[in-house]
Amino acid sequence: MFKTPYQQLLDRFKRMDRFAHLSAIVGWDQAAMMPDGGAEPRAEAIAELEALRHELMVDPANQELLRQAEQMNLRPQDRASLREIKADLTMATALPEELVRRKSELGSRCEHAWRSQRQANDWQGFLKNFEPVVEASREEAQRLSQKLGVAPYDALMERFEPGIGSAAVERLFGSIASWLPGVIQEVQSKQRAEADPIQPEGPFDIEKQRQLGRKAMELLGFDFNRGRLDVSAHPFCGGVPSDVRITTHYNPQDCLSALMGVVHETGHALYEQGLPQEWAGLPVGRARSMAAHESQSLLFEMQVGAHPGFIKRAGGWLAEAFGAQRAFEPDNLIRLVTRVEPGLIRIQADEVTYPAHVALRFEIEKALIEGAIEAKDIPTIWDARMMTLLGVDTRGNYKDGPMQDIHWTDGSFGYFPSYTMGALLAAQLMRSMRQSLPVDDLIEAGDFAPIRGWLADRVWSKASLLSTSELIKSATGSELSDLAFKEHIRSRYLGEAPKASRAARP
Amino acid sequence: MFKTPYQQLLDRFKRMDRFAHLSAIVGWDQAAMMPDGGAEPRAEAIAELEALRHELMVDPANQELLRQAEQMNLRPQDRASLREIKADLTMATALPEELVRRKSELGSRCEHAWRSQRQANDWQGFLKNFEPVVEASREEAQRLSQKLGVAPYDALMERFEPGIGSAAVERLFGSIASWLPGVIQEVQSKQRAEADPIQPEGPFDIEKQRQLGRKAMELLGFDFNRGRLDVSAHPFCGGVPSDVRITTHYNPQDCLSALMGVVHETGHALYEQGLPQEWAGLPVGRARSMAAHESQSLLFEMQVGAHPGFIKRAGGWLAEAFGAQRAFEPDNLIRLVTRVEPGLIRIQADEVTYPAHVALRFEIEKALIEGAIEAKDIPTIWDARMMTLLGVDTRGNYKDGPMQDIHWTDGSFGYFPSYTMGALLAAQLMRSMRQSLPVDDLIEAGDFAPIRGWLADRVWSKASLLSTSELIKSATGSELSDLAFKEHIRSRYLGEAPKASRAARP
Repeated sequence: MFKTPYQQLLDRFKRMDRFAHLSAIVGWDQAAMMPDGGAEPRAEAIAELEALRHELMVDPANQELLRQAEQMNLRPQDRASLREIKADLTMATALPEELVRRKSELGSRCEHAWRSQRQANDWQGFLKNFEPVVEASREEAQRLSQKLGVAPYDALMERFEPGIGSAAVERLFGSIASWLPGVIQEVQSKQRAEADPIQPEGPFDIEKQRQLGRKAMELLGFDFNRGRLDVSAHPFCGGVPSDVRITTHYNPQDCLSALMGVVHETGHALYEQGLPQEWAGLPVGRARSMAAHESQSLLFEMQVGAHPGFIKRAGGWLAEAFGAQRAFEPDNLIRLVTRVEPGLIRIQADEVTYPAHVALRFEIEKALIEGAIEAKDIPTIWDARMMTLLGVDTRGNYKDGPMQDIHWTDGSFGYFPSYTMGALLAAQLMRSMRQSLPVDDLIEAGDFAPIRGWLADRVWSKASLLSTSELIKSATGSELSDLAFKEHIRSRYLGEAPKASRAARP
Repeated sequence: MFKTPYQQLLDRFKRMDRFAHLSAIVGWDQAAMMPDGGAEPRAEAIAELEALRHELMVDPANQELLRQAEQMNLRPQDRASLREIKADLTMATALPEELVRRKSELGSRCEHAWRSQRQANDWQGFLKNFEPVVEASREEAQRLSQKLGVAPYDALMERFEPGIGSAAVERLFGSIASWLPGVIQEVQSKQRAEADPIQPEGPFDIEKQRQLGRKAMELLGFDFNRGRLDVSAHPFCGGVPSDVRITTHYNPQDCLSALMGVVHETGHALYEQGLPQEWAGLPVGRARSMAAHESQSLLFEMQVGAHPGFIKRAGGWLAEAFGAQRAFEPDNLIRLVTRVEPGLIRIQADEVTYPAHVALRFEIEKALIEGAIEAKDIPTIWDARMMTLLGVDTRGNYKDGPMQDIHWTDGSFGYFPSYTMGALLAAQLMRSMRQSLPVDDLIEAGDFAPIRGWLADRVWSKASLLSTSELIKSATGSELSDLAFKEHIRSRYLGEAPKASRAARP
């Protein structure tokens, strides 16, 4: 059977996608299932697979097929696949196999040891594994930088957020910095004038928490025939679109953190499950970018999950599962979930102070990759900046400081900006959605099908057909900015009416 | 760095072992974790990995390195690795990649559909997926037969039981057939004269059953730092030596089947966990064969688990977990566990009637591979032979008949004889162990370290250093026969003193 150069290239990428499937499942297992004793052989097995994937990617025949395929007359979705293939090949051929293998092994080892070192607040122990990860990541950044013709840190960002660059991120953070500190103060003084919310009283049975998580997933539309909910130290959404694996972490003293975490990961999962099935395994069929992914998780966590209509329902569930408490009553629970309080932990931060956590990590990792600072300097900078940005004292507390995130442990530098870009995009999508759907009523009624339908239409079904900027413009009508986010924050936390709400339109 | 041909060959096999690691974990996930919707893409991903492993195996460079390595002066363990490598290469080069990929895909699909088809007693539906599996297996057997110069069925056996052959199995089954039917009758008439054992009254909470399983695993010495216990439709022992995954299946109406099943899989797991760490990932470091593996699981399930000393302890656990019942008292529980009763299900069969189940499957699968019968003929033969062998009526009951086992669903023909060989070897090992250890006292005391020590010394630490026959002779002092098994059955079920017990020796 004759196959065109494009079809041949696609066959090669489908094969790589099947290896990516194995990588995703084994990676999930490593975090959610594997006992400690299995770590070393597993790290070696994963590194072997990553090296193979890299080897398949850098096969010179791919370049030749790409050159020929680019001459072909293709449908838009095939053009998009080709765009993604070209980006993959460019990224991959910049890196020698030895470096890919070394970084994967160092990363697996550092991440695994981090799980216990973090508990033990063992920064020095962590540093021993982390320094080689930084070294390998700098080498990676240098090589990618040469290939892509952008700065080293921007080159790393390219992997998660193609076509954006750190200058755009700096502009967004710059704009946020112009109004957010003032808003934090305003919100805090407003909230200080109100009664303190009552904390729910534990302990909260883990099995019951798990059932609540599943209930939320079902309500939001997670397809359990194509996915699972499990436990890992650091929650994530993994697996493959046909089998999405989300994880959470239960705290027996806290009935809200796992529940809201599950809502967040469900946003990621719905995006994956909503990718077009006819493009499964094809480059055009992948989720657009990390910011696009975070926009979905944050849309569900912050726009939906922290919405009064959803919180009321969750309060009912909590009372049913753990017995009625004053803390579970709507007014209290809403004040609890929308409490703004500068703190140590990014993943526990409220949506108002969250951008400060990301800005800090962005500053540090950019400087680290550029060689302006060393890994050992991180705690000093962390302590100083956390005091400036949020007024919290982090000295000596590595475990709730620079050791709190999984991202750096395996060298995933360049990822953090996606969180804030995702938060901005979530707000921007929600503002657009309000123009065609009675969003508040739907959330109140627990009717998520229209919301999923809107997102499927504007975001999920598009997969990687468009570039990130094109997707944002086509879905929301404008470029990414912090306007909708600012409006959302001022509306929810200061009671200001949004400027572009549905009611305000004719 | 200069590497000898042997070292180069070993590097290649270490790489293949890392892919085998991924295959084991993803295969476990498929059976224990994966939701239904993930089946198709997973089957494709696994088939891709198997094709890759096959491709690496049939690389002509391996043959050349092998030829050179065979001229080298090597240590015994390296000679043994070379023997295993040679056997692997011979098996693999007999098969074209297309066949390997096709059989893996057909097998994954048939096995997955079988999980629900079995529930529905849907033999016709099963047959549609199963016939192509048989076709592919026959093709496989033909090709292996030509390469190895043995009959087609023997060639398939070679994969699980190298160097044994179906003639030896026929001799063993022939010998068993000469005394077992009489013993079954004797035991049944003896047991009919006694009071019927009382059945424990359920339901038995699954979580408590799970905890009992873990308790048994801990007592027997399973290392939870290097393994897990989970649930699957068909219990198995999977994973890798550094991370052994055993599964079980809980029945809320039966408190014994999962517990004894866990003890069985723990025997497999202890063997894997007991393989020498210095040979990890090397061909010499693998478990010897399936019969050797089954000897360990059956030694723990039948020789240890069904031992009065162990049953007494289990009775105490059961009473503690589910409340005291007359059924949990030692005399009753012993009669219950040692009850001989011809039945439908192999994995629920007592150790006395078990060989009949295996003999039936051996007859059928041998005839199926030889083309003497077709897949559609199986139920007729099954019904007739089950009536002859065990006097049970299986007509129309496919789900508890030929659809009950997972083995055929993915074309693992040639495996079944290993079960009975394992039962014979377990008895033979136990008879030897009694010559140097007070086995009954140790089991009574729950002190399994000396038993593990003996097995580690004679079996586990040897891995694949010796051939199966050599291993059996070195561990027990004689060739494999049914003598010790017969003695064990006559002793346990008819109260006859074993001829070669420790007490009888000076």
